[in-house]
Amino acid sequence: MNIKHILRKRVILLLALFFSSTIAMNAAQKIDRIEPTNWFVGMKNPQVQLMVYGKDVRAAEVSTDYPGVRIDSLVRLDSPNYLLVYLNVGDAQPGTMNLLFRAGKSKTSVKYELKARDMKGEERMGFTNADVLYMLMPDRFASSGKYLNVKGLNAYSVNRKEPSLRHGGDLEGIRQHLDYFNELGVTALWFTPVLENNSPDHGKSSTYHGYATTDYYRVDPRFGTNDDYRQLVSDAHKKGLKVVMDMIFNHCGFEHPWVKDMPTKDWFNTPEWLAPENQAKAVKTKTVDGDQITNDKYLQTSYKLTPVLDPYASKVDLRETVDGWFVPSMPDLNQRNEHVMTYLIQNSEWWIETVGIDGIRMDTYPYADRKGMAHWMEVLNTEYPNFNTVGETWVTEPAYTAAWQKDSPLAEVNSNLKTVMDFAFFDRLNQAKNEETDDWWKGFNRIYNSLCYDYLYVDPSHVMAFIENHDTDRFLGEGQDTLALKQALALLLTVNRIPQLYYGTEILMNGTKSTTDGHVRRDFPGGFAGDTRNAFNKAERTKEEQAMFSFTSRLLHWRQNNELITKGKQTQFIPFKGVYVVARTLGDKAVMTVLNGTSKTATMSVARYAEIIGNRTEATNVLTGRKIDLTKDVKLQPKGVLVLSL
Amino acid sequence: MNIKHILRKRVILLLALFFSSTIAMNAAQKIDRIEPTNWFVGMKNPQVQLMVYGKDVRAAEVSTDYPGVRIDSLVRLDSPNYLLVYLNVGDAQPGTMNLLFRAGKSKTSVKYELKARDMKGEERMGFTNADVLYMLMPDRFASSGKYLNVKGLNAYSVNRKEPSLRHGGDLEGIRQHLDYFNELGVTALWFTPVLENNSPDHGKSSTYHGYATTDYYRVDPRFGTNDDYRQLVSDAHKKGLKVVMDMIFNHCGFEHPWVKDMPTKDWFNTPEWLAPENQAKAVKTKTVDGDQITNDKYLQTSYKLTPVLDPYASKVDLRETVDGWFVPSMPDLNQRNEHVMTYLIQNSEWWIETVGIDGIRMDTYPYADRKGMAHWMEVLNTEYPNFNTVGETWVTEPAYTAAWQKDSPLAEVNSNLKTVMDFAFFDRLNQAKNEETDDWWKGFNRIYNSLCYDYLYVDPSHVMAFIENHDTDRFLGEGQDTLALKQALALLLTVNRIPQLYYGTEILMNGTKSTTDGHVRRDFPGGFAGDTRNAFNKAERTKEEQAMFSFTSRLLHWRQNNELITKGKQTQFIPFKGVYVVARTLGDKAVMTVLNGTSKTATMSVARYAEIIGNRTEATNVLTGRKIDLTKDVKLQPKGVLVLSL
Repeated sequence: MNIKHILRKRVILLLALFFSSTIAMNAAQKIDRIEPTNWFVGMKNPQVQLMVYGKDVRAAEVSTDYPGVRIDSLVRLDSPNYLLVYLNVGDAQPGTMNLLFRAGKSKTSVKYELKARDMKGEERMGFTNADVLYMLMPDRFASSGKYLNVKGLNAYSVNRKEPSLRHGGDLEGIRQHLDYFNELGVTALWFTPVLENNSPDHGKSSTYHGYATTDYYRVDPRFGTNDDYRQLVSDAHKKGLKVVMDMIFNHCGFEHPWVKDMPTKDWFNTPEWLAPENQAKAVKTKTVDGDQITNDKYLQTSYKLTPVLDPYASKVDLRETVDGWFVPSMPDLNQRNEHVMTYLIQNSEWWIETVGIDGIRMDTYPYADRKGMAHWMEVLNTEYPNFNTVGETWVTEPAYTAAWQKDSPLAEVNSNLKTVMDFAFFDRLNQAKNEETDDWWKGFNRIYNSLCYDYLYVDPSHVMAFIENHDTDRFLGEGQDTLALKQALALLLTVNRIPQLYYGTEILMNGTKSTTDGHVRRDFPGGFAGDTRNAFNKAERTKEEQAMFSFTSRLLHWRQNNELITKGKQTQFIPFKGVYVVARTLGDKAVMTVLNGTSKTATMSVARYAEIIGNRTEATNVLTGRKIDLTKDVKLQPKGVLVLSL
Repeated sequence: MNIKHILRKRVILLLALFFSSTIAMNAAQKIDRIEPTNWFVGMKNPQVQLMVYGKDVRAAEVSTDYPGVRIDSLVRLDSPNYLLVYLNVGDAQPGTMNLLFRAGKSKTSVKYELKARDMKGEERMGFTNADVLYMLMPDRFASSGKYLNVKGLNAYSVNRKEPSLRHGGDLEGIRQHLDYFNELGVTALWFTPVLENNSPDHGKSSTYHGYATTDYYRVDPRFGTNDDYRQLVSDAHKKGLKVVMDMIFNHCGFEHPWVKDMPTKDWFNTPEWLAPENQAKAVKTKTVDGDQITNDKYLQTSYKLTPVLDPYASKVDLRETVDGWFVPSMPDLNQRNEHVMTYLIQNSEWWIETVGIDGIRMDTYPYADRKGMAHWMEVLNTEYPNFNTVGETWVTEPAYTAAWQKDSPLAEVNSNLKTVMDFAFFDRLNQAKNEETDDWWKGFNRIYNSLCYDYLYVDPSHVMAFIENHDTDRFLGEGQDTLALKQALALLLTVNRIPQLYYGTEILMNGTKSTTDGHVRRDFPGGFAGDTRNAFNKAERTKEEQAMFSFTSRLLHWRQNNELITKGKQTQFIPFKGVYVVARTLGDKAVMTVLNGTSKTATMSVARYAEIIGNRTEATNVLTGRKIDLTKDVKLQPKGVLVLSL
């Protein structure tokens, strides 16, 4: 089924709805869905929005006799099939209540559960710079084999030979490999989104990536069940691993029920193009990952994030950025509508309470309404003061990302977002890897010249750094430059940041996006039935893979619970004769990350780093365990790296 | 005379002083110099530091019977030949006082004048974004012929054929051309430094540029007298022109008396290399503009300004930046010594009071001690709250320069500096001029992507922008691309900045620094005796020169007293189909600067700029006076520019 087909279907539906809205309510009131699917007692905010969906439910009156619960307000939206019930559950005990819907002579009673919380909001501890996040894509990591051919979803294919289709990984597959993460030494897992993405495949394009939600309260059945997710988080916690959930508030998937039956006319931004009269003007555009169908009322985002912060931004530019759609298959949610925002906020709370996640990664952060998102973070910071959220802020300038961090004096609107992504670090390092550092603007000088702007950040130690992710080329590109990768990892894991790794880096997985994103999202070898070898198993890794695994693992284990890393003062030295040094010091301890940014042998002058080395005559290279003599200058191999523990 | 010779002379002097310091004070106390050469009554700060120089004066006691004056303290420095007298003149009337110096039986009385101020400090109005500064080099602009062969200075040559030697321009020459500035339409003049630079020429290298001060209280006699300077400022004021004085606190010239007889051991940073025992190790280094003599104790600045702000800066890097010398011939003053700083602060006040300057341009701002400079600005802002100072902050990142502006939340130390230089604007524009704007990272997209970070600045309207200056290649390079220059000027003169022009731009003066700085500092044609033509005179300009003069002048006059420019809200539009638009709006007025960033014809879509254009059907192009029809899209010539008044 292609998009054109979907659009035609939607036209018919929209027309049908137009007429149905004029029909009086049925005698037998049917409630199809209430979201959240349950709620919790004991939250700081006693109010919960129930989004009730059912034919002609808008007209209903609602009551309940559950002790401690009262109805604050009913909000009737544009669609006749939605009703928002704002309940106050501040004095209620856990239990199942009855909600009575009445319209004329029709009466319907629906059960709704109020659960007890597992713990207080204060007790949920988010990820910090003591953690290292391991990012993975559930479809591409490991498959339990349980959910390979799920029925009841729109057309899709499991085809591991096609980089852009589903490969069949699931949450249970991840759970079966939790020991691997312990062995490697990471302390937190970030999965790309796991919620239902029930849009059909289009040619080579599918929703395996998970960024097109069609049900905010349900794990995609191809990844497993909500219970699987809860079990995975629970087992991860037992192994000392935190779990970060990837969420998307900016847009949902085209097959979300909201598209077929928009709750309000402004539920989405710039929805005009969906109107029946505009559908006739649809045109097809070829893209890399499949075709797009749009018409001249369709507004695509410019992908330019600058207008959101630019004090001189024009209205037309700002509108394109935030109201334009990411792609035609991802309807752009209007977070300026307070009911939309409340729905999304509750959804994030519900997942925290239901499966016990330790953090959130928010997709396409600046594309969503700035004030709405700031309000979300304010609510979460109040309910879960020790939780953490990282926003994807994809601009490669510290001056940009810094303004998105909580309490930044640079922003007109306080984002309340504790952690932002350091795309500058990613960008500079990936430019630097093929350059020589002895040019002031190249090589590690790029990193130096980026880190020096950390004064722009309110809290650099809460900034997340990375060298690659699912949306970028792999650090290795199509090559295998392990020297550059080792340097990048040593830096990433010792600087004043929250580091994030991407699955497979430790076993030299490479690839670029030049043909399709799927090439940077390849399957983890051994995660799937029929794999010829299992790289989760040391014995089955190649010698080169094992060397990188061992390098990474050694550094990660050294980093764990290391106060030098979490609290150490950072000092960086301008690259000198090709050598870049970043040091961390705390009390009488110190560590120096020493990088030879040239392809020739280089020398680290001991005298030059006296302010860190002091009177010490010896150091230990964390990467090898070997002693290094500091009574003389230290030789560095071409592109060599040392992590010197002092 | 070459530097080696000078060094040898200094060795002898230093040795002589070493012995002389042990000799008892002469019976006849001789006072060679007191600085400031006079002071003023009625300053907010009642204290003044008198730096008294005379053989063995350190031992003297000082008294005065002048009513209202008392001596707060005497400070005896390391050299026997200096004495600092801190006077309190808070209750004194103008007049000439006697200062009595007594040492043993020796008595010397010296007259010292306390002058009345011309006006209160509050009445001195600095330059603002209502102004356009015209920067010129006194040696290269115009010569009165009065000071071509001044005697009593170290060896120098007037040789107009040699780009790096003196050409003979002077202040009186500038004064004779004040009408030219009025005709052009600028409102302020910034001259490169005018104080005595009495270091000898070395081969092709001379001090015509003025950045190597040897007397902080005297105009270089080759530029004229202090009275000439006062006359020039006074006459400029009568013609509505402000004058900005270029000052250098970071360093002085090697022939400054302080070098031969250092007041204190720490008067300069890292002076060890001057010690006699180190001179023996002197080596000669070839440079572009002459040779340098140094030894292994010599510390040159790294010219890397990042450590001053880098929160992770190492001590070794920071020391190199701020304590290293700019060049061996410019001794690096130690502003951490409070007496040095007081001397410099008073010097700036003295010139304000004495000649009536309206602003200061401070050279090499971040190279000097940050706290010392911040204190200077605090003192000046207190004494002259409406005065303005611009600091040379040569890093091409808004994130850097913004932190140097007064009250920036980005800085640990408040600089108190109201105006910084926008090197990013300069840099982006000079990269953009040869690029096409339809690449997101090139052409005017560079400007867009730089201006959007104006939120980093506390006050963008007090930031000084420019397209070239005496230290950069001319905007035209070795070419004559008047289209690019017109675009640059239109932008510079309409954005939310204090614009600065460089002399000769208006008559297409070009040149690059590839062989020597002198090629971007050529003589203004007609400013010197024997010039074959006089470009101050319209009739003698070429057709192309006159076209550019007329373009610039028209824009400058339109800009004068234009509230759209000084107060208008700024809006910028992301370059769209190659067209970059920056608008200013105030009440019902608006102006749009429209730039075609491509070398093809382009179209400005009227609809896209509706938020500025509104219902207007017509605009006037400020650059031509012609009407532009806004009922249809507007055609733009390749690299075309419009300044549309709405």
